[in-house]
Amino acid sequence: MVMHMSFSVAVAGASGYAGGETLRLLLNHPEARIGALTANASAGTTLGEHQPHLRRLAEVRLLPTEVEHLAGHDVVVLALPHGASGAVAAALAATGADPVVVDLGADHRLVDAAEWAAYYGGEHAGTWPYGLPELLHPGERVAAAQRAALAGATRIAVPGCNVTAVTLGLQPGIAAGVVEPEDLVAVLANGYSGAGRSPKTHLLASEALGAAAPYAVGGTHRHIPEIAQNLRSAGAARVSISFTPTLVPMSRGILATATARLVPGTSPAAVREAWESAYADEPFVHLLPEGTWPSTAAVAGASTALVGVAVDERAGRVVTVTAIDNLVKGTAGGAVQSLNLALGLPETLGLPLEGVAP
Amino acid sequence: MVMHMSFSVAVAGASGYAGGETLRLLLNHPEARIGALTANASAGTTLGEHQPHLRRLAEVRLLPTEVEHLAGHDVVVLALPHGASGAVAAALAATGADPVVVDLGADHRLVDAAEWAAYYGGEHAGTWPYGLPELLHPGERVAAAQRAALAGATRIAVPGCNVTAVTLGLQPGIAAGVVEPEDLVAVLANGYSGAGRSPKTHLLASEALGAAAPYAVGGTHRHIPEIAQNLRSAGAARVSISFTPTLVPMSRGILATATARLVPGTSPAAVREAWESAYADEPFVHLLPEGTWPSTAAVAGASTALVGVAVDERAGRVVTVTAIDNLVKGTAGGAVQSLNLALGLPETLGLPLEGVAP
Amino acid sequence: MVMHMSFSVAVAGASGYAGGETLRLLLNHPEARIGALTANASAGTTLGEHQPHLRRLAEVRLLPTEVEHLAGHDVVVLALPHGASGAVAAALAATGADPVVVDLGADHRLVDAAEWAAYYGGEHAGTWPYGLPELLHPGERVAAAQRAALAGATRIAVPGCNVTAVTLGLQPGIAAGVVEPEDLVAVLANGYSGAGRSPKTHLLASEALGAAAPYAVGGTHRHIPEIAQNLRSAGAARVSISFTPTLVPMSRGILATATARLVPGTSPAAVREAWESAYADEPFVHLLPEGTWPSTAAVAGASTALVGVAVDERAGRVVTVTAIDNLVKGTAGGAVQSLNLALGLPETLGLPLEGVAP
Amino acid sequence: MVMHMSFSVAVAGASGYAGGETLRLLLNHPEARIGALTANASAGTTLGEHQPHLRRLAEVRLLPTEVEHLAGHDVVVLALPHGASGAVAAALAATGADPVVVDLGADHRLVDAAEWAAYYGGEHAGTWPYGLPELLHPGERVAAAQRAALAGATRIAVPGCNVTAVTLGLQPGIAAGVVEPEDLVAVLANGYSGAGRSPKTHLLASEALGAAAPYAVGGTHRHIPEIAQNLRSAGAARVSISFTPTLVPMSRGILATATARLVPGTSPAAVREAWESAYADEPFVHLLPEGTWPSTAAVAGASTALVGVAVDERAGRVVTVTAIDNLVKGTAGGAVQSLNLALGLPETLGLPLEGVAP
Repeated sequence: MVMHMSFSVAVAGASGYAGGETLRLLLNHPEARIGALTANASAGTTLGEHQPHLRRLAEVRLLPTEVEHLAGHDVVVLALPHGASGAVAAALAATGADPVVVDLGADHRLVDAAEWAAYYGGEHAGTWPYGLPELLHPGERVAAAQRAALAGATRIAVPGCNVTAVTLGLQPGIAAGVVEPEDLVAVLANGYSGAGRSPKTHLLASEALGAAAPYAVGGTHRHIPEIAQNLRSAGAARVSISFTPTLVPMSRGILATATARLVPGTSPAAVREAWESAYADEPFVHLLPEGTWPSTAAVAGASTALVGVAVDERAGRVVTVTAIDNLVKGTAGGAVQSLNLALGLPETLGLPLEGVAP
Repeated sequence: MVMHMSFSVAVAGASGYAGGETLRLLLNHPEARIGALTANASAGTTLGEHQPHLRRLAEVRLLPTEVEHLAGHDVVVLALPHGASGAVAAALAATGADPVVVDLGADHRLVDAAEWAAYYGGEHAGTWPYGLPELLHPGERVAAAQRAALAGATRIAVPGCNVTAVTLGLQPGIAAGVVEPEDLVAVLANGYSGAGRSPKTHLLASEALGAAAPYAVGGTHRHIPEIAQNLRSAGAARVSISFTPTLVPMSRGILATATARLVPGTSPAAVREAWESAYADEPFVHLLPEGTWPSTAAVAGASTALVGVAVDERAGRVVTVTAIDNLVKGTAGGAVQSLNLALGLPETLGLPLEGVAP
Repeated sequence: MVMHMSFSVAVAGASGYAGGETLRLLLNHPEARIGALTANASAGTTLGEHQPHLRRLAEVRLLPTEVEHLAGHDVVVLALPHGASGAVAAALAATGADPVVVDLGADHRLVDAAEWAAYYGGEHAGTWPYGLPELLHPGERVAAAQRAALAGATRIAVPGCNVTAVTLGLQPGIAAGVVEPEDLVAVLANGYSGAGRSPKTHLLASEALGAAAPYAVGGTHRHIPEIAQNLRSAGAARVSISFTPTLVPMSRGILATATARLVPGTSPAAVREAWESAYADEPFVHLLPEGTWPSTAAVAGASTALVGVAVDERAGRVVTVTAIDNLVKGTAGGAVQSLNLALGLPETLGLPLEGVAP
Repeated sequence: MVMHMSFSVAVAGASGYAGGETLRLLLNHPEARIGALTANASAGTTLGEHQPHLRRLAEVRLLPTEVEHLAGHDVVVLALPHGASGAVAAALAATGADPVVVDLGADHRLVDAAEWAAYYGGEHAGTWPYGLPELLHPGERVAAAQRAALAGATRIAVPGCNVTAVTLGLQPGIAAGVVEPEDLVAVLANGYSGAGRSPKTHLLASEALGAAAPYAVGGTHRHIPEIAQNLRSAGAARVSISFTPTLVPMSRGILATATARLVPGTSPAAVREAWESAYADEPFVHLLPEGTWPSTAAVAGASTALVGVAVDERAGRVVTVTAIDNLVKGTAGGAVQSLNLALGLPETLGLPLEGVAP
């Protein structure tokens, strides 16, 4: 039984991919009433010029991203470039308006201001409740504390998409103490929508088709400290991770192959049990049967994460492979899931569970 | 100045991808005269029905793969399923014919019969000179011994495509002693042509488009012992490697992200120097400038390998990324390069150096 | 206000693409209760082995496609190869069960038995009410009669996917008399899922990636008589059409470029008015603003059709471009839309209006 | 026997796709010596930063596109935006240098200055010998006059890529009088490299993957008057053509489906004979066997065109499907072929005949 707890919601940055995906989900959310849509350079145009797939909003005119247009809603979603949401959130608060603010950007994810400065530069905007309900807390084998932290929250920092994939892949083993949190290695196959909508030569279709290519190699990617922060939450004393994303010719999807050293003496059964118990009751995160591996196609458009795990005894490593849709579970779906918790709604309300495959 | 040393060549398995690519290269090789083309199920049809891109051979009729059709050539290339080439090579020898035999399959790659039995099953067909001219031998920093082993060879075992990519990525660091040969981790993005031309549901375009998916996860891939064999050649006492290939939506190409633990106390300059010195004079293998990373698009259709390397000091790992075309440097190009050496021809003769990009 | 009119539904052919897409939609349909799922070769396996994206049905075991398993449901959807549904429907009726039967195959689409024999071969299974609610009838400028024909129907023949795209593109002009129904020319870009899930060499990802290729060229495609039948419904006395589908590297989607000769003396405004009035109130079919053209990406996963139209006065032709998702508006979505009408439910109930883009 | 007639060549616009492809071909041309490479915004950078696949030129530094750098070569290739080459050619001539100038842009293709003004705007730069050796002249059934026009030419206007595909598809039937030149309809599937390398939102990989979308619909494309000009050369009194290009998710390739009304009373054999006789002896253009259709994959990287033809008697139309690589036969390959003729070299010298497939 769903209580009626209808809420109005404004989206800042509606012409981009993250904003568009948020709107696609909210259009199908039974309690959401979509209000102001704002943009920067595209203010004054209609949403249909940018998001022709969002038929029911095609005629809506975009407003400039100003506090006066965002205030007056129950919920404000910020789909803005990194570094921009801190100021908007502060300005909103200064008006006396007190909406629930959901930040899809990085500004409020990191706890450690020094890490923010090192990876993003500039002053840290402060830390908000972290929008990954499945995040394990110290001592947990099944996620509960993070859900409690999100219940009633008025600020939500939505995780990075790569971070969600790698965290979901590795955290059960770290929480259970069956893998080492040091010397992790993760390599990701990433769809191009994760790079955003600003035109750049290396993101052109002509360059992408027929090509696989890495970026941010060698420990420079901004998602690294966020992964480490999450795995410390799951129980790691000290995390080190080699992290390499690679662009492959698909629009959506992350396939994260994340491996960790097996704690010597651990049985394969104990490994499997760690992942099984962590995700047995999760509505969006599923462990696949032994010997079965996920495809990003199976989660396209859905807020689902699929995880496979194996022990490679010869190599002394546990290998996990996690598939998510970067724009759904990795961004907009994770945001709506967390928002549901914040508003006291059923966690899965309005969210797609089935991918659009093939 | 190229000596004229024209040779006739038969290709067994001409209707498949490896056979077709070999023919594409041989058509542009100034000393090759293409002779008999054979097939199994497709015997009796014309090559044009299977390889419509090979215009000059479109009318050639395929013969059955029988020794009588292969004998009488200077060179025989075997592009057959694993397990099939051993018998054909033996039967050829029994006729008294003594062509140079180039095996694109796995049958003659492994030195250790027990590893053959463990990964492929059945009896080992024996070990042939290994067709990776750039392979470093113990004590070498620049490849010479493998070229010597191939000069005048009458049998050549062409490496596996994934093996070529991972070996080229990692061997300079192992030979130079700057990375540890244990606890290697490699994750590959693979094009679909590597899976061959037999129709299977999971290889359909409808399944592949928009999808990234792993296979042979957890240490089961047959290329693992071959990688270890190569890295032992380069100087490793004991190799362990976690190896995960992933299919991504492209037809050709392998992008191999291969990482190794940095030997404590090693400077980034020493790391870079190891790769630079190994490949400075190689005609087909190029180290990219610091901070630059390869795309498979840049090597499509070419027998070139591009390698990037970085040190991630926080993670304590060296990260290498290598791009090859699986059908060229990874199969047919490596074969022709080795054949050139065997025949005393210039190593690069007839081989494309430039990729077809974009 | 939605009346509760819950119905049980069986799907025959649940392991294929059309069956899977039907289930994806039914899982999100508020009145559908999914019952028996059947298959042929895959009977005995779980749905999750074939449709890993349908999470909530992953454990359901497939039954053999036999009447005893299909009878006893309010609705039976037949997602079977052409020629197979006629017999199943007849056998179902013979049991005394009288479910609403929805045929996704071709068996009951054509009115003319001679055309069935010419294009499909064998005996015609009879004609059922045609599941294209937007189909114009003689004299209509806005579709109403076809909806009336579907209201309360107990048999529904769902149109072919290419047919839906071409019919929606051209029928407004024919109904309004602004274009000639003879000498139509249609060329389509088709995603690979339309070719089904049986593995064939020319459908492999390795063949498809980087390739565009036509099939059924020269008037041989089975959808041609069905297009003509629809355009005659819309008012054409005699239809002739050159129809060429081409496979392009995407999984879903049809982009149909369909052109017709302008009736001499017709103004561009009259042309535009024909399309505008036909689709102004359609919930799933939308005419795009002048100078704007559809992309299949905008309708991926949605039951929406987007249509653009222009007059090329120099060429004397009206050009229409229509984008649909072949599996949704072209198959499963059209089926559910028609089923809603048959059951007296709101026409759009449970159907996705927004595409999954980018 | 190849005479040695080595020539030096400068390429203006070396950082773009057309310039890069020209260089790829010239690197494998036995008589070409590559000289100055120029660019506009990229002057001062190395070619390797833009064309990482052109290994042998990776270290070459780009000069500004100024006459002083282009003069002093035997051949100058202009790979510049439309409207830019006229001025450069004029300035070159003014220096007294008299190289062979090959213009890959549109400036010198059209004979009719009014059509230039209507489709491109501005003043017409004059008409140069047209670089399509296979173009039929009035009364010809086999191309000879165009080759004669190119022999010894010092200026060459290379055709548009779409124009090449449509002209090759249709001209045999028009020259033979078996199809009507009025009411032609052509719909093309185009790879993204044809849109160039300037970053634009609608050309992003995220937008392109999974999408087919038309552009320049309704008779606005600039290639239309050039197609008409060619077909008039082949014998048409008056040409009208509906022309619609569509972008599909591939980097290279054009698949042109071009149809024409059958002249009443013409037999299918007469149709086939027209195409057969026109192309029987062409080195780069091949008619496929009856019932066989081309894929763009078969011509990727090659200067080959594959043509299929069928008669659809019910529709009263001849359907032709032509596949080319837009950057090779459609641009750089056609340029080198014409240049070979201009210089008195064998027409096929240095040009790839076999596509890189799969």
